[in-house]
Amino acid sequence: MSQKANIDRVFHALGDPSRRAILEKLSEGPISVSRLAAPLDITLAAVVQHLQVLEESGLVRTEKLGRVRTCQIEPAGLSVAAQWIGDRRSIWERRFDRLGDLLAEPETTPAPLEEHPLLIA
Amino acid sequence: MSQKANIDRVFHALGDPSRRAILEKLSEGPISVSRLAAPLDITLAAVVQHLQVLEESGLVRTEKLGRVRTCQIEPAGLSVAAQWIGDRRSIWERRFDRLGDLLAEPETTPAPLEEHPLLIA
Repeated sequence: MSQKANIDRVFHALGDPSRRAILEKLSEGPISVSRLAAPLDITLAAVVQHLQVLEESGLVRTEKLGRVRTCQIEPAGLSVAAQWIGDRRSIWERRFDRLGDLLAEPETTPAPLEEHPLLIA
Repeated sequence: MSQKANIDRVFHALGDPSRRAILEKLSEGPISVSRLAAPLDITLAAVVQHLQVLEESGLVRTEKLGRVRTCQIEPAGLSVAAQWIGDRRSIWERRFDRLGDLLAEPETTPAPLEEHPLLIA
């Protein structure tokens, strides 16, 4: 799976409030599917479907032990989302730092307008 | 707006690949709406709609300067998403650390099963 497809899947999975509620519960530790479903305001069938999306996107791992299927957070999936967000922030912040440097330049030596990398495109 | 509603809006906004493409472009710096739309494979009307969702979720700020509307990243929105992901990871990692401590305990002093905080629910 390409990195772009991977990012798409992860953010699609995180875009649903029920799936985020599942991840919030799973961050407390592994749990069986039926226990996971009990406090959620959706059917067991819906939970199973959401878990499938979460598993396909690498956010959750499920495992059948005997007759019980347990699920747990797969931190690699969260890392994909965290990395994408971190990249956007760091690119933006570097740009902001350059703006700060520019504003701190002595007024007597203004750069020519066409050389300013921070002009609005 | 409650924190939960805020998180819902941010992750809903991030769930769409076109909106993430817009954020990727905006992380390079402020840009006019028409320049933003040009390389994207969607109509200007669609871009405007996506920008509205991004603005309402606090991920983007737009501003009209004369006849040109420019848009830029609003880092507070990305922070909301980063915080939610970070919280999930840190809760999970603390649990993982406790599991490590448990496994490192001398075999001669096993804790009673009912006291193990890490048992699968």
